[in-house]
Amino acid sequence: MTQKHIVIIGGGFGGLYAAQKLQGIDARITLIDKRNFHLFQPLLYQVATGVLSPADIASPLRGVLANQKNTTVLMGEVKDIDPDSKKIYVSGGEEIDYDYAIVATGVSHHYFGNDHWSQWAPGLKTVEDAINIRRRILDAFETAEKETDPEKRKALLTFVVIGGGPTGVELAGAIGELANHTLHDEFSNINTTEAEILLLEGFERILPPYAPDLSASATDALTKLGVTVKTGAIVTNIHDHVVTFRCGDRTEEVTAQTILWAAGVKASALGEILAKRADAPLDRVGRVMVSPDLSVPNHPSLFVIGDLAHYAHQDEGKPLPGVAPVAMQQGEFIAKLLKAQIRNLPLPQFRYVDRGSLAVIGRNAAVVDLRFMKLTGMPAWLIWTFLHIFYLVEFDNQLVVMVQWAFNYFTRKRGARIITTKYSQQVTIPEVSIPEVSTT
Amino acid sequence: MTQKHIVIIGGGFGGLYAAQKLQGIDARITLIDKRNFHLFQPLLYQVATGVLSPADIASPLRGVLANQKNTTVLMGEVKDIDPDSKKIYVSGGEEIDYDYAIVATGVSHHYFGNDHWSQWAPGLKTVEDAINIRRRILDAFETAEKETDPEKRKALLTFVVIGGGPTGVELAGAIGELANHTLHDEFSNINTTEAEILLLEGFERILPPYAPDLSASATDALTKLGVTVKTGAIVTNIHDHVVTFRCGDRTEEVTAQTILWAAGVKASALGEILAKRADAPLDRVGRVMVSPDLSVPNHPSLFVIGDLAHYAHQDEGKPLPGVAPVAMQQGEFIAKLLKAQIRNLPLPQFRYVDRGSLAVIGRNAAVVDLRFMKLTGMPAWLIWTFLHIFYLVEFDNQLVVMVQWAFNYFTRKRGARIITTKYSQQVTIPEVSIPEVSTT
Repeated sequence: MTQKHIVIIGGGFGGLYAAQKLQGIDARITLIDKRNFHLFQPLLYQVATGVLSPADIASPLRGVLANQKNTTVLMGEVKDIDPDSKKIYVSGGEEIDYDYAIVATGVSHHYFGNDHWSQWAPGLKTVEDAINIRRRILDAFETAEKETDPEKRKALLTFVVIGGGPTGVELAGAIGELANHTLHDEFSNINTTEAEILLLEGFERILPPYAPDLSASATDALTKLGVTVKTGAIVTNIHDHVVTFRCGDRTEEVTAQTILWAAGVKASALGEILAKRADAPLDRVGRVMVSPDLSVPNHPSLFVIGDLAHYAHQDEGKPLPGVAPVAMQQGEFIAKLLKAQIRNLPLPQFRYVDRGSLAVIGRNAAVVDLRFMKLTGMPAWLIWTFLHIFYLVEFDNQLVVMVQWAFNYFTRKRGARIITTKYSQQVTIPEVSIPEVSTT
Repeated sequence: MTQKHIVIIGGGFGGLYAAQKLQGIDARITLIDKRNFHLFQPLLYQVATGVLSPADIASPLRGVLANQKNTTVLMGEVKDIDPDSKKIYVSGGEEIDYDYAIVATGVSHHYFGNDHWSQWAPGLKTVEDAINIRRRILDAFETAEKETDPEKRKALLTFVVIGGGPTGVELAGAIGELANHTLHDEFSNINTTEAEILLLEGFERILPPYAPDLSASATDALTKLGVTVKTGAIVTNIHDHVVTFRCGDRTEEVTAQTILWAAGVKASALGEILAKRADAPLDRVGRVMVSPDLSVPNHPSLFVIGDLAHYAHQDEGKPLPGVAPVAMQQGEFIAKLLKAQIRNLPLPQFRYVDRGSLAVIGRNAAVVDLRFMKLTGMPAWLIWTFLHIFYLVEFDNQLVVMVQWAFNYFTRKRGARIITTKYSQQVTIPEVSIPEVSTT
């Protein structure tokens, strides 16, 4: 009997965990990703705010999987999946046959039908996003230093973060640290502590999935860092560095050089493709509504995991949140399921274990909701720090991050505070022109 | 009496050392640079080959100079200098009056009249150059892995480095390490050790300024890393991934996906401006031929230091080489000179102290020429490593680099081996659109 071929599309937390946990299975595994690295996305906001470098939180997939001899890594973008012939089509022209396919391509930004807002309010999903946001933030201070018109200077020193989930809270807090501590003594013409940092959240409190007292504690911590939190604020327009939002029956306008989007996500393109090719049911934001075993309904060998999957919580009925622990548990589950299937053993059931959630605001400030216990301040911050270092360990990057954090903690300096020129918009595979080989 | 104003243009080794050594002088100092960071250029090839991240070797100028209260940092590009009215014109429209001006803007690539070669054979001067070269090198391996045509695959796995000076030697050695060690076990369809790495040098031996036995030792070390060294090889054309070069009376052609340029430099644009505005004499590559006190002839308050200056060695008559120690010593000298001038003390004389030169080839392989002693292999490598860490110390980056190097040394892995999309070509100040402020 020939070996089965398991193809994993996407090397994020879901896909990479599945690949790692499949180690030792009697099958061939191919991991396809359009990038050559796994990105530790929870720390991406630290790249965007000059604490870490991209490579500190990125691990080359080939390096991570080098010791798994049955696993091949392919850099490419999947363009189509045909579940009838069990074929995957990759951008470079490759056609790959599979016995089992695991789709784990995640989500991208969602501007709720206003995609033109993206030029004024970029989101934070890729390394390039982070570098471009870092450039925008640092450039705003540099330009303000040279600006003589007080109104323009005020606009340059105004930062609006839209969306009060963990990413928005972390970004706003980090900009607050930058303005009030890191950059404080470095400029001659401006006082960076006068920077206005606005965090807008449409719901009545920030960090909606957390307990209300943790939301309040996060708001306090943000306020101490100079962030103004506005809740119940619905953004109605973004244009030419002006954000318009409704707060109850008042409409407000803020002019800000730097506007960042952390408000919504939508499913990646493979969701649509699965709907078309495999009749996969999609939810409102395009995520695939998977069966209890994470397969696409009526396609028992085609699975969707991680942020791209809509999976109802076994007890609460709500879909599981789009966070790393869900993706990791789903990746681990799929590995167990396929091992059992290939060995003809009884199949396991997926059950999400919620170990809590946590978000960081700044130095010594975080909120941790362990369900049985809630923590804020320094203890929460220590838990956050420890857990992030711990999970980075698996990807070889922990030492450098520890050094950078220690440096940052004691000096409030930031090592990666450099302005580089713009990354091109291109987010698929970088172009490679195959040379025409002349026979010399 | 009002304070004198000293303006330094360029925050490289020359400009930044001048600024730092001017600490405590009774004068105002302004440092202008088009970037917001000092770049530790000798390690840039390690960014291009995935060992370090840009921020590891870049120090924000405002951070470095934060404690010098009489020093202002201005991010901007100098467009013109008028030595008669003693004014400097900056890209943003600023006009700056100076009493003393120090020009230290260095050099850029020189393709000897063939600027169109640059698209096929990029050079390595900026952070963006390094990231783009890293992408090209890593992409070549990824594309080769998917290529089925053996000739195209061969071209993808061929790397040509043009120029056998320190940068070319370091780049070729680092690509050799990558192909033969770091990437060795990570691909399924290609054997990375079959990569062909060619180092082309026009002179009869590589590292021409070093003693002949050190050149020979460097050639041996490169050969062990799988690099083919061709000397006496004059490149006559670069086009469509094909390099044509003459070796004696033979003409050879090599098809290579990746071609890197490390062969020539030319003066930055301010050289031309000084020629026009201050009648500054220029040498063949556009460097300013300075007076013995590093001033522009007939302009005693206008100085040129570092790579942009052509300064004849006091004993040998040859111009001083374009290396960091020369720039640092000249920056230090100018600081002493201006301190003496402002205090009406006797003026010092500039005298270059040549402490030797060193280049690294790979792990445990380097050449060091201390004039009184020559070293190769592990001892040379240890000296190289120690000196680079030591000089980085002054710029806050040493710890992270030590961790990365230790990691690399013991595992041969490279932490910064990530492919990011293309940086835009723009190398002046990143665009910032000043918002039109509406009065709301």
